[in-house]
Amino acid sequence: MRVGFIGLGNMGAAMAANLIKAGHELTVFNRTPAKAQALVIQGARLATNVVDACRGEAVLTMLSDDSALEAVVFADNGIAQAQPLSAIHISCSTISIALADKLTMAHHDRGQRFVSAPVFGRPEAAAARKLFLAVAGPADAIDACTPLFDAVGQRTFRFGERPSSANLVKISGNFLIASVLESLGEAMALVGKGSLDQQQFLDFLTSTLFTAPLYKTYGGLIIEKKFEPAGFAAPLGLKDVGLSLSAGEMLRVPLPLASLLRDRLLALLARGGESLDWSAISKLAAEDSGQSD
Amino acid sequence: MRVGFIGLGNMGAAMAANLIKAGHELTVFNRTPAKAQALVIQGARLATNVVDACRGEAVLTMLSDDSALEAVVFADNGIAQAQPLSAIHISCSTISIALADKLTMAHHDRGQRFVSAPVFGRPEAAAARKLFLAVAGPADAIDACTPLFDAVGQRTFRFGERPSSANLVKISGNFLIASVLESLGEAMALVGKGSLDQQQFLDFLTSTLFTAPLYKTYGGLIIEKKFEPAGFAAPLGLKDVGLSLSAGEMLRVPLPLASLLRDRLLALLARGGESLDWSAISKLAAEDSGQSD
Amino acid sequence: MRVGFIGLGNMGAAMAANLIKAGHELTVFNRTPAKAQALVIQGARLATNVVDACRGEAVLTMLSDDSALEAVVFADNGIAQAQPLSAIHISCSTISIALADKLTMAHHDRGQRFVSAPVFGRPEAAAARKLFLAVAGPADAIDACTPLFDAVGQRTFRFGERPSSANLVKISGNFLIASVLESLGEAMALVGKGSLDQQQFLDFLTSTLFTAPLYKTYGGLIIEKKFEPAGFAAPLGLKDVGLSLSAGEMLRVPLPLASLLRDRLLALLARGGESLDWSAISKLAAEDSGQSD
Amino acid sequence: MRVGFIGLGNMGAAMAANLIKAGHELTVFNRTPAKAQALVIQGARLATNVVDACRGEAVLTMLSDDSALEAVVFADNGIAQAQPLSAIHISCSTISIALADKLTMAHHDRGQRFVSAPVFGRPEAAAARKLFLAVAGPADAIDACTPLFDAVGQRTFRFGERPSSANLVKISGNFLIASVLESLGEAMALVGKGSLDQQQFLDFLTSTLFTAPLYKTYGGLIIEKKFEPAGFAAPLGLKDVGLSLSAGEMLRVPLPLASLLRDRLLALLARGGESLDWSAISKLAAEDSGQSD
Repeated sequence: MRVGFIGLGNMGAAMAANLIKAGHELTVFNRTPAKAQALVIQGARLATNVVDACRGEAVLTMLSDDSALEAVVFADNGIAQAQPLSAIHISCSTISIALADKLTMAHHDRGQRFVSAPVFGRPEAAAARKLFLAVAGPADAIDACTPLFDAVGQRTFRFGERPSSANLVKISGNFLIASVLESLGEAMALVGKGSLDQQQFLDFLTSTLFTAPLYKTYGGLIIEKKFEPAGFAAPLGLKDVGLSLSAGEMLRVPLPLASLLRDRLLALLARGGESLDWSAISKLAAEDSGQSD
Repeated sequence: MRVGFIGLGNMGAAMAANLIKAGHELTVFNRTPAKAQALVIQGARLATNVVDACRGEAVLTMLSDDSALEAVVFADNGIAQAQPLSAIHISCSTISIALADKLTMAHHDRGQRFVSAPVFGRPEAAAARKLFLAVAGPADAIDACTPLFDAVGQRTFRFGERPSSANLVKISGNFLIASVLESLGEAMALVGKGSLDQQQFLDFLTSTLFTAPLYKTYGGLIIEKKFEPAGFAAPLGLKDVGLSLSAGEMLRVPLPLASLLRDRLLALLARGGESLDWSAISKLAAEDSGQSD
Repeated sequence: MRVGFIGLGNMGAAMAANLIKAGHELTVFNRTPAKAQALVIQGARLATNVVDACRGEAVLTMLSDDSALEAVVFADNGIAQAQPLSAIHISCSTISIALADKLTMAHHDRGQRFVSAPVFGRPEAAAARKLFLAVAGPADAIDACTPLFDAVGQRTFRFGERPSSANLVKISGNFLIASVLESLGEAMALVGKGSLDQQQFLDFLTSTLFTAPLYKTYGGLIIEKKFEPAGFAAPLGLKDVGLSLSAGEMLRVPLPLASLLRDRLLALLARGGESLDWSAISKLAAEDSGQSD
Repeated sequence: MRVGFIGLGNMGAAMAANLIKAGHELTVFNRTPAKAQALVIQGARLATNVVDACRGEAVLTMLSDDSALEAVVFADNGIAQAQPLSAIHISCSTISIALADKLTMAHHDRGQRFVSAPVFGRPEAAAARKLFLAVAGPADAIDACTPLFDAVGQRTFRFGERPSSANLVKISGNFLIASVLESLGEAMALVGKGSLDQQQFLDFLTSTLFTAPLYKTYGGLIIEKKFEPAGFAAPLGLKDVGLSLSAGEMLRVPLPLASLLRDRLLALLARGGESLDWSAISKLAAEDSGQSD
């Protein structure tokens, strides 16, 4: 397929590379063009501006947050103006359901099609084509984009016709991950202060009831206090928990555990954790119990 | 081995039956003797009182809470008085670390040995010999009891010489399970009010990052609102979360997520949920968002 | 003084009437002009549009939230375009500190002056000239507007040169009021279920340590469950608690009690309380304890 | 009246002194007799044991917690054994409603009368006869003891015939005070990090809506971080918030704000605050926002 790709951060660059490998004709664009060079060497065409990246059947966007995506879509010479009739905009970013709904309307009004396809996985998973995708949007558009999804992920899950549904899946999934971090942080603070060997406790957990790799990976990071380099930085975690709270506010769903997570992430940032992985919220339970680093 | 077994509830009866099957010479005692009949048919000897159940090398106790166990141990003609020198008391109940420490001292002062061996698993798992055991106590005592542990569980994890360490593992483990219930409850309330199919969302979770059976089992109960009959009743859940908070108070470890769980369980009981499974706390997130049963 | 007044809700209309009574030459504007009629009878001039309301030395705005105020200020022919050099914009609305900072810059860039003057008090207090004002902004502008402040309130408190400081006072003050509501709600749920006479308990409180009228007024509403008509409606309460959380996010200050208040207000709205006074969050503590209406 | 007084801490000693001043014939007892000397000089008789302090019409107890009071009442030669028929035991301690109910039964069974009369006020208030008393118990017993209540406090409030009602008032009142501490702590952290003058903010609050002396006194301590010497030490605060949570558990009333307060007090103790006033929980909001001492 002839597609554009906008947003070449760690995640985006890895996904773009896999699209090239799968044989798609890729035009890439990034605000800071240096990041596009490696992809050009791999065979991508470099777009000089957003319009230039929007000439194909579809354009994928992988940007950091709502405002970055809004800017690229609604600016003069942005995606909304640039895409041809019936072209598809696939948004892979983690954005609010409100923005997803707004994009759905905007593209629909212009005769374009909008698909939400947020991804689960860290940059290593993106590079290894191991992402999971949650996608939602017009069925024909999703069908048409299946080769693209297959090129970047190991499995795609469909959530109906309304694009924001996929975003709600992503937001809720990230909330569940953050909940695991907090619960492990508290449990480790407790067993640690109770003089138990934390690694032995973790081995027990992951050999019995908590066999998901998530517990093993994050449990290890928490015990070793290995929060740098950040796989997923605390400010992004705060943004994502904020998205769950915003969704909850819009839908009138109180989420007390999400509120606790927000307060933890905010405390982490206030106490110097800007560059740490979001699993560093586990430090706070330890610190509140008088266990220093 | 010649052993006694005190406490024949759903869990205890299943464990006792497996001890008989494994060839151990079992003497059973229960406050209400009717429950012992099935075991007598399977080959157990019926003790007429606690003293009578304490004549062997070891006695196992499986009782509902601190006060039940304290009563059986410290009463006149209780376990502490009755056990011979160097006999072993194996406590499988979920009790406080404070009581475990007290029992350790009391048995030690009388030349007896105390082992904590709380178990993870529901009654079905107990019947199928699929329990996991966390054990701690004097190494020689644990070694001696290994045939007993093997008879009731699929795997035994050792946590050192201090018995209460095993109780801390049990308490912390149950806290982690309850955390999963709350996080799933909130996430399901959110996606449900967002018109997403909850089963589809759960399938996504359990196929990707949350592969532990725990998520599948409890996720299913939560979606179907199948809270009766209770596998683990809400009042027991409140007791167990209370144990984590008591441990936290003793060790000076604030546990805000455990506090939230306690408030949820209390609300569940106050609103008529005495007989429901503890996973019914998930209803509260739904109800707080205006989604009725 | 020659002043404009934009935003004639319950609060604004009462304040505008007092400005007329004090002899100021008032031009009023409201999106729905019907509300302005009573004031015209009292001597106000009716502006046909925003520009028309901005011809005097100062314009006061009393609008419901950030977006309403932003629209009136930054629209074509909005306040920012319309005000003459060195004219003063006095914002009495409860808005975010972020917007206050933005307005400060925008007016400054145009050679105008911006003063934040949020008010404390319900509509009755506004009518009776009993409001308290927290004001901040350029000292000369505040000095110039003192006759206006005196005309609407019983006392004015100055908080320096940065306008958003006054908004922070307002936001933090409202957070403290909401905290009183929650604490009273929980205490009343507890004593009520403990079969104590709630009115007797309240009399005790307000005769001893909690002598502030706030406790008496709200305590009475809570006991009588008199939540309609709303003096301050729940959705406005949610907005205001949201402003404290936004301020906390911007300044990196976790506010766990504000998070609890937000969850309560959200639950109240989700469960049908859109039209109730914000003190109705006290119902939730009672309902969570199984005490029905 | 001929009365005994057991428990001569800061509060008890001041109350006993006022009873002597009012002309009552006082016999005092304390575990560590040194504390009784000053009272003997003022005219008290020194009891050699508990029995000796129980010979009058009434005995007042002012002890630190449930277990201290239980020990003195139920020990061999304790109050329950020692008091004559129809004598009155007035408990001024802050104890659980469960213990108050148990004492009510125990005294009733022995033909004695039990009155709960917990007091509000710090040691200075006790010395100045400025305490407030919440009393409950048999009406004739309360009538008989009125001269004693008048001797120690400025005003007495009656809460019916069931003694534990007075304890519930005390517990709920202390919960409300602690709620003020937390709300002020969060608000001060917010305005402080927002560069507002905290004293100016406090003056505003206490001149407008929060006129109760409580806000002025505690607000001042919080701003000046003057947490030593402790007027009411953090461990006592934890005990009292714990009593509200226990009452809530018994009565099935979830109290999320009390849970937050408990976590704060626990964190304060874990981080070295054993000797600080309970208002020091306000430090935690500041520390969580990165504002150091």
